[in-house]
Amino acid sequence: MAKDKLHDIVEIALVKDNWINIQPLTLDYAGTDLNLDIVADKLIGADQGNFKIAVEVKSFSNPSVTYDFHQAVGQYLHYRMALSYLSIERMPYLAIPEAIYINYLIQPFFQDSLALHQVNLVTIDPLHQEIVRWNPNPL
Amino acid sequence: MAKDKLHDIVEIALVKDNWINIQPLTLDYAGTDLNLDIVADKLIGADQGNFKIAVEVKSFSNPSVTYDFHQAVGQYLHYRMALSYLSIERMPYLAIPEAIYINYLIQPFFQDSLALHQVNLVTIDPLHQEIVRWNPNPL
Repeated sequence: MAKDKLHDIVEIALVKDNWINIQPLTLDYAGTDLNLDIVADKLIGADQGNFKIAVEVKSFSNPSVTYDFHQAVGQYLHYRMALSYLSIERMPYLAIPEAIYINYLIQPFFQDSLALHQVNLVTIDPLHQEIVRWNPNPL
Repeated sequence: MAKDKLHDIVEIALVKDNWINIQPLTLDYAGTDLNLDIVADKLIGADQGNFKIAVEVKSFSNPSVTYDFHQAVGQYLHYRMALSYLSIERMPYLAIPEAIYINYLIQPFFQDSLALHQVNLVTIDPLHQEIVRWNPNPL
């Protein structure tokens, strides 16, 4: 699945799940632009009541899930560091396809990394354009 | 610079710096193979006296240094987690070109990430095939 496609689907799924103010977030860390140049990779901001989240979308489109996971976790930790540095009070989430979760991320290596690095996950059903699970629930 | 080229240069530079037992390290984490399929991306083991290190080589060959840095840090943290899990007592190091260090990694974002995530660095002069700096020194 193309990277930009999943990004759009995540936005649709968030709206269905009653999130509002869906917007791209730009993070500038003392002169270093953390956003990659492609719009599709922009962090997504969303609000619900007093809850605010910042969602990184990772489609896992490379042949190696492990390689994509290294990249996703590193980027997540850097976004979290930048949100803190910029005093932006949004709970960071990593959005991934549900199929990646059930086929790979239930394995010990991935589970241990998610726990050790305290990565918040939200999984997406791309076909139905819906959120499947939050871990933990942001509300 | 091709990824495999820097990998070979790091091995040469380690030998010049009196490291012995240069060898590829394979990390299997409860059934998940952490090594990418390409030999060039294998973690390098090296010894000197009682000191043992495990070196991840990152050439930063993508157009976006930030993207490569996300990937490098994520991979480093996973290698460190796996070394601990497997009770392999080697100090992990991230090997990068010196030019990447002086042109980018001295910026606050990169410095803060390296400090926060406790990443050990070694920088390489590819032209002279030599180590420029250790941070911190492994000996």
